[in-house]
Amino acid sequence: MSQPPDDRHTTLQELKGRVAAFVAERDWQQFHTPKNLSMSIAIEAAELMEHFQWLTVEASRNLAPEALAQIGEELADIVIYSLSLANTLNLDLAQTVQAKMAKNIRKYPAEKVKGKSHKYTWYEGKEES
Amino acid sequence: MSQPPDDRHTTLQELKGRVAAFVAERDWQQFHTPKNLSMSIAIEAAELMEHFQWLTVEASRNLAPEALAQIGEELADIVIYSLSLANTLNLDLAQTVQAKMAKNIRKYPAEKVKGKSHKYTWYEGKEES
Amino acid sequence: MSQPPDDRHTTLQELKGRVAAFVAERDWQQFHTPKNLSMSIAIEAAELMEHFQWLTVEASRNLAPEALAQIGEELADIVIYSLSLANTLNLDLAQTVQAKMAKNIRKYPAEKVKGKSHKYTWYEGKEES
Amino acid sequence: MSQPPDDRHTTLQELKGRVAAFVAERDWQQFHTPKNLSMSIAIEAAELMEHFQWLTVEASRNLAPEALAQIGEELADIVIYSLSLANTLNLDLAQTVQAKMAKNIRKYPAEKVKGKSHKYTWYEGKEES
Repeated sequence: MSQPPDDRHTTLQELKGRVAAFVAERDWQQFHTPKNLSMSIAIEAAELMEHFQWLTVEASRNLAPEALAQIGEELADIVIYSLSLANTLNLDLAQTVQAKMAKNIRKYPAEKVKGKSHKYTWYEGKEES
Repeated sequence: MSQPPDDRHTTLQELKGRVAAFVAERDWQQFHTPKNLSMSIAIEAAELMEHFQWLTVEASRNLAPEALAQIGEELADIVIYSLSLANTLNLDLAQTVQAKMAKNIRKYPAEKVKGKSHKYTWYEGKEES
Repeated sequence: MSQPPDDRHTTLQELKGRVAAFVAERDWQQFHTPKNLSMSIAIEAAELMEHFQWLTVEASRNLAPEALAQIGEELADIVIYSLSLANTLNLDLAQTVQAKMAKNIRKYPAEKVKGKSHKYTWYEGKEES
Repeated sequence: MSQPPDDRHTTLQELKGRVAAFVAERDWQQFHTPKNLSMSIAIEAAELMEHFQWLTVEASRNLAPEALAQIGEELADIVIYSLSLANTLNLDLAQTVQAKMAKNIRKYPAEKVKGKSHKYTWYEGKEES
């Protein structure tokens, strides 16, 4: 079987369309409310975290191939539900992400935070979101 | 200011590249370990959930524009950290997502689960992931 | 087998002691760091949420006995890890909880918030924590 | 002001009673559905995690007094919502916790798992919950 198209050849819209079709074919729009989808994302995020729970931060950089495959699936679930929420809310995800990144660039100027964790900058006076 | 490119014109690779540059310019690769990023995704997912916590499932479908803007930012954070984790793990997200969707299609045949929630199918005998 | 002592006859210290003994007998203090325990609580919280994910808020009030038993176990896991974190941090949980409740009572005066959800009061101007 | 009673002199029932009174005085039983409370616990768990997000596992053992005070408040929130859920579900928490601990003792025999993380035992063949 041929590989599906990769990150260089796949737009956000293409993935959103696949997720929308999956949901519509099952008549699952009724369950995919924003409230439920936010819970789904949080649940999948916890399943992802579970893989790293007892690892040191350093060990989490050196994963066995089998662990990596499972972790990829958990990450995929998070992305799938995020795409479904974007569909439900009629949000353009590329624009939303790029707008948030522009905000983050202003909030964390490279020259100021270089090599310091978010936590450090946090304590200098963090404004919300 | 012109709008950033939209979902139809943005590939996963373009967003991954922007996130990678943001992290590298701040020398934050040292903090963006898989363990920490899995926590970041879970934390942002909870912030998203917080917007829906006291709403009925139905009310979560009818959001004020201001709430929608805040929710979009939380969703963007989840996607940004997910892209950073894909960068760190050297995962092709488009392929990973499409492979997981193919698995979900086999697991939840449309004709069998149509109009029934995941929960229903769950109790018929759910296999993991 | 006789039932274990109930809520009326069990102090926080008794439960903390049982959890501390469980951890010490397995030499697990090394893994029960505050960072890891905070992840454990979040993971167990997600497992609890999973039981309610596709239910309406109303349906979540009417649970089958079997579901209730599973939900009790997830809640127990959350409490066990919370007790272990209190042990690790050398926190008196009863005093900490009562101090936080005193703060909540000042923050949400009964006459002001009666019958309104947290969300309502939130928008009137919420201060953090 | 005198200190509230400590862990040695406070039963679970006393804390449950205080939480029940707080909720009833605000007429908040209508919002404290099991579904919503499971979300509340997950949200507070994420706020707790946020304090540890960028710390090494080791650094999370050495917290400044100010950080410890904030962390105590987040942990208190988790416990308060857990007590409210136990109230709502009419669960005896002490019995539920002790029953789950008895199960954990059987599942993780001290002589077998001593000094090995949960993760280790996981891979030998973990059964659910």
